[in-house]
Amino acid sequence: MINIKAILNVLSALLIFLTASLLIPSTIAFFYNEGDFQAFLYTDIISLALGLIGLLLTRNRDELRIKDGFIIVTLGWIIFALIGALPFKLSGFIPSYTDAFFETMSGFTTTGASILNNIEALPHGLLFWRSFTHWLGGMGIILLSLAILPLLGVGGMQLFKAEVPGPTPDKLTPRIRHTAELLWGVYVLISVAEIIALKFAGMSWFDSACHTFGTMATGGFSTKTASIGHYNSALIDYIIIIFMILAGTNFALHFRALRGKPFIYWKDREAVFFAAVIAIAVIIIGVDIYFFKEKSLFQAAQYTIFQVVSILTTTGYATADFEQWSTLSQIILFMLMFMGGCAGSTGGGMKIIRSMILLKFGLNELKQLLHPQAVLSVRIGDQPIPKEIVTNIVGFFLFQIILFIIGILVMSGLGLDIVSALGSVAATINNIGPGLGSVGPTDNYSNIPVFGKWFLSFLMLAGRLEIFTVIVLFSPAFWKK
Amino acid sequence: MINIKAILNVLSALLIFLTASLLIPSTIAFFYNEGDFQAFLYTDIISLALGLIGLLLTRNRDELRIKDGFIIVTLGWIIFALIGALPFKLSGFIPSYTDAFFETMSGFTTTGASILNNIEALPHGLLFWRSFTHWLGGMGIILLSLAILPLLGVGGMQLFKAEVPGPTPDKLTPRIRHTAELLWGVYVLISVAEIIALKFAGMSWFDSACHTFGTMATGGFSTKTASIGHYNSALIDYIIIIFMILAGTNFALHFRALRGKPFIYWKDREAVFFAAVIAIAVIIIGVDIYFFKEKSLFQAAQYTIFQVVSILTTTGYATADFEQWSTLSQIILFMLMFMGGCAGSTGGGMKIIRSMILLKFGLNELKQLLHPQAVLSVRIGDQPIPKEIVTNIVGFFLFQIILFIIGILVMSGLGLDIVSALGSVAATINNIGPGLGSVGPTDNYSNIPVFGKWFLSFLMLAGRLEIFTVIVLFSPAFWKK
Repeated sequence: MINIKAILNVLSALLIFLTASLLIPSTIAFFYNEGDFQAFLYTDIISLALGLIGLLLTRNRDELRIKDGFIIVTLGWIIFALIGALPFKLSGFIPSYTDAFFETMSGFTTTGASILNNIEALPHGLLFWRSFTHWLGGMGIILLSLAILPLLGVGGMQLFKAEVPGPTPDKLTPRIRHTAELLWGVYVLISVAEIIALKFAGMSWFDSACHTFGTMATGGFSTKTASIGHYNSALIDYIIIIFMILAGTNFALHFRALRGKPFIYWKDREAVFFAAVIAIAVIIIGVDIYFFKEKSLFQAAQYTIFQVVSILTTTGYATADFEQWSTLSQIILFMLMFMGGCAGSTGGGMKIIRSMILLKFGLNELKQLLHPQAVLSVRIGDQPIPKEIVTNIVGFFLFQIILFIIGILVMSGLGLDIVSALGSVAATINNIGPGLGSVGPTDNYSNIPVFGKWFLSFLMLAGRLEIFTVIVLFSPAFWKK
Repeated sequence: MINIKAILNVLSALLIFLTASLLIPSTIAFFYNEGDFQAFLYTDIISLALGLIGLLLTRNRDELRIKDGFIIVTLGWIIFALIGALPFKLSGFIPSYTDAFFETMSGFTTTGASILNNIEALPHGLLFWRSFTHWLGGMGIILLSLAILPLLGVGGMQLFKAEVPGPTPDKLTPRIRHTAELLWGVYVLISVAEIIALKFAGMSWFDSACHTFGTMATGGFSTKTASIGHYNSALIDYIIIIFMILAGTNFALHFRALRGKPFIYWKDREAVFFAAVIAIAVIIIGVDIYFFKEKSLFQAAQYTIFQVVSILTTTGYATADFEQWSTLSQIILFMLMFMGGCAGSTGGGMKIIRSMILLKFGLNELKQLLHPQAVLSVRIGDQPIPKEIVTNIVGFFLFQIILFIIGILVMSGLGLDIVSALGSVAATINNIGPGLGSVGPTDNYSNIPVFGKWFLSFLMLAGRLEIFTVIVLFSPAFWKK
C-alpha cells in the first residue's frame, strides 16, 4: 500500500519551499510595480496556507517506501506547475490557465517551450519567475538523477548514482540531503560564475540572472522574444555555449573537478563521447552552413556551435533559425534532440551514456553472430555494465519510442502536420523547447489546441522524470496491495 | 576462414537455377515478339555460361560453415539482381543500368519500388520477368526465414524455425531441402489458387499471374501504372486483400492448416496479433476516411482495408493515394511499415512477433520497477522466450533504427526533403515499395539521384536479409581468421 500521510507530508514541505522561492519574484514585482505584485501575493498566501495545513495534518508520518517515491516525484512537479502558474493567470498577463500551466510546466521541467508571442510585454516579476522555475527545476533534476532515481531503479539510473565523498550515513533521507547539499553547492557556484560573465559581456544584472537560470537548467526561457539572437554578440554566444556544455555534463564530475581533479572529464567516457558528438555534428553542419549559406567561417562556426550545443544539451536557446538550414542539418539536429545531455546533468533527452550502452549492445549482437558460444558483456571503458542495467536501459529506450509514437499520433490527430507533430513531441518529451514546423525556433506553442497543450505538458513531465517514474503510476499493478 | 570454393559452387548452382527461371520470360518474349527476346537470350547465355564455368571450377567442395552461409545469402541476392537486370538494360527498355539494377533488386527483395513512369510501355516478356523476380524472391525468403537464418542465429530467427513434420535427417543440406520442398509446395498451391481467382474476377491470365507473383511475395509490382486501382473492382480488391493476408502469414502455419488443422491460426499468438493490428488500424483509418473523405461506408472499408493490408504485409499495391488522407492516417500507415508481416511469411519489416516481444519486454521492465527482486521472463502465450533470443531481437531492433537513421541522413544529404527521405528509407528498408512525399503511391523512384538508387538498393537487400546477415559482412571480425 502507498503511504498517503507520508506523501502529503513531503508534498506540504515542498509547498513551503515553493512559497519561499516565490518571495524573490514577489519582491521584484513589488519594487518594479508593473501590475503583477498582487498576483504573486495571492499565490504566496495560497501556497503557504496549503503547505501549513498539509504539514499540520500529517505529523508523525511513517517512513517512505519506494512506491511513495514515484508518487512524490510526479505529484511534486505537478503541484509546482499548478501553483506556479497562478501568478501568470491571476495577473492577467497569461489569460488562459491552460497556457499558464503549460508555460510553468515547461519551466519546471526545464523544457523552455513557450506560448508567449511577445515576451518583452511581461513585467519583471513574472519574467524573473518564469526563468526561476527553470533554475528550481534544474535543482530538482540534479537531485533526482543522482540520488533519488538510482534508488528507485528507473531506466538504469542505478549506474549514474553520484559517488560523492564524505560521510554517508545509512539512513535514506540524510544521505539524499548530503548529496543534494554538495551538488547544489556546485550548481550555485557555476550559476554565479555565469551571471558575472554575462554581466561582464554587456547584459543587465536582471537579464544575466534570467539567462543563467535558463542555461544552467538547460531550460531555454529568455527574457527576449528573439532569444539569445537578440544580443547579436559573439561574446555572449560563446559564454552561453560554455555554460550550456557545463550544464549538460554530469554534476558529480564538476564536484570532483572543483575538489582538485580538473582532468576528471577526460577520464569520463560519457563526457568524452559528449564532446565527440558535439564536434562531429558541428563539423558536418558547419560545412553545410559555410558553403551553402555564404557565411564567414567565423559566423558559420558561431551559429553552428551555438545551435548544436543548445539542442544537444536540450537547452533550446536560439541565435539562428535552423529551419532555414538544409534538410540534412535539420535531421542531425533532430537526432541530437533524442540523445540529450549526460546523466547527472540538467539536460534532458535519452542521455549520452544510454546511447553509448545501446550502441555497444548492438555491436555485441553482431559479435555474437560470429561467436555464438561467447558470453559477451557490454563495457564502457574497462567497466562491464551489469546485465540488469543494460536491460533497464533497453526498456527505457523502448518506452521512449512508444511514448514518442503515441505522442505523434495524438498531435497529428489534433490536426498538426507531420513535421510539426514530430517536432512538438520530440521537443517536449526531450525537454528542449523549440521544435520543427509550426513550433520551430521562430514560432511558439500558442496555436496548439487546448488538449494538445495539456498533452504536451504531460510529455514534458514524463520525459523529465525519465518516463518510467510517471508511466509506472498508470500500471494497475502499482495500485494493487 | 571462409570457404571460397564452396561458396562459388553454391552461387554457380544458383546461376543455373536463374537460367532455368529466365526460360519462362524468354519464351513469352519470343512469342509476343516485342523487341526484348534478344536481350533475354543474351542474358540466358551469360547466366548459363557463368554457372557452368563456376560449377566446373569448384567440384569436390568442402562442407559449408556458418560464415559461408552469410556470404552465400548476401552474394546470391546481389548476383541475381546484377544478372536479372540485364534483360531490362540490353533490350533498351530501361536505358540506365542503375535503374535496371534498382528495379531488379526491388523485385528479388520483394520490395516493389519502381523507377518506371509508364509500366504499360514494357513488352510482355519484361513485364513477366519483373513480376517473376518477386515470386522467386519470395521463395528464397520463405526458405531463408524458416530454414537458413534460424541456423545462422540472426536476430532471434531461431524462434521462427519451421517445425515441419516428416523425416528430418541429421545432415544440414538434406534437412534444408526437405523443409524447402514442403513449404514451396504450399507457396505454389496458394499461388495457383490466386491466379484462378483473379482470372475468374476478370483479369487476363497474364495479369493474373503477374499480380499473383506480386501478392504472394508481398512484392507489389503491377503490370499497370495505376497499380490495382487500374481495375476499379471491389472483387479484385478483396481477392488481393485475402491473398496479401495469406502471404503475410507464417507459411509453416499454412502447411499445418493444409494438413488438416484449419484452426491452427487461432492458436498462433502472432497470427492473432497480426489480425488485431489490421482490425485496429482499419477502424481508426476507416472512421477517418468515412467522415472526412465523404466516401460511402462500403467504399471507405474497401479502400482502407486494402491500403492497411498492403502496407502492413509490405506488399505496396495501391488502390488509393493515401497521401491525400489525414496526417493521422498517414502516420499510422507509416508505423505499420515498420511492423511488417509475420515471421516465416514473405512479408518484410520488423515482423509481428518481434514487435510483440519488444512490447512484452518493455512491460516487464515496468513490472520490474515495482518488484525489483522478481525474475521476469518474456512470454508469448504460455511460452517463455529464452533470454538470448530476446537479446537478439532487441539487437536487431537497434540495428534497424541505426540503419534507418543512416538512411535518412544519406537521403537528406542527397537533397530529398524530410518526408521523402523518411518515406524512401522506410519503404525500402522494410521492403514495401511506395513511400511518402516524392516517392509516394502515385510517384516513383525515377528522380532519385544515381547514388541514392544504389544506396536504396542496399537498404532493400539489408532489410530483406534481416539486416544482420548483410551488416556482419562489414565487421572486421568476420574476415579475421
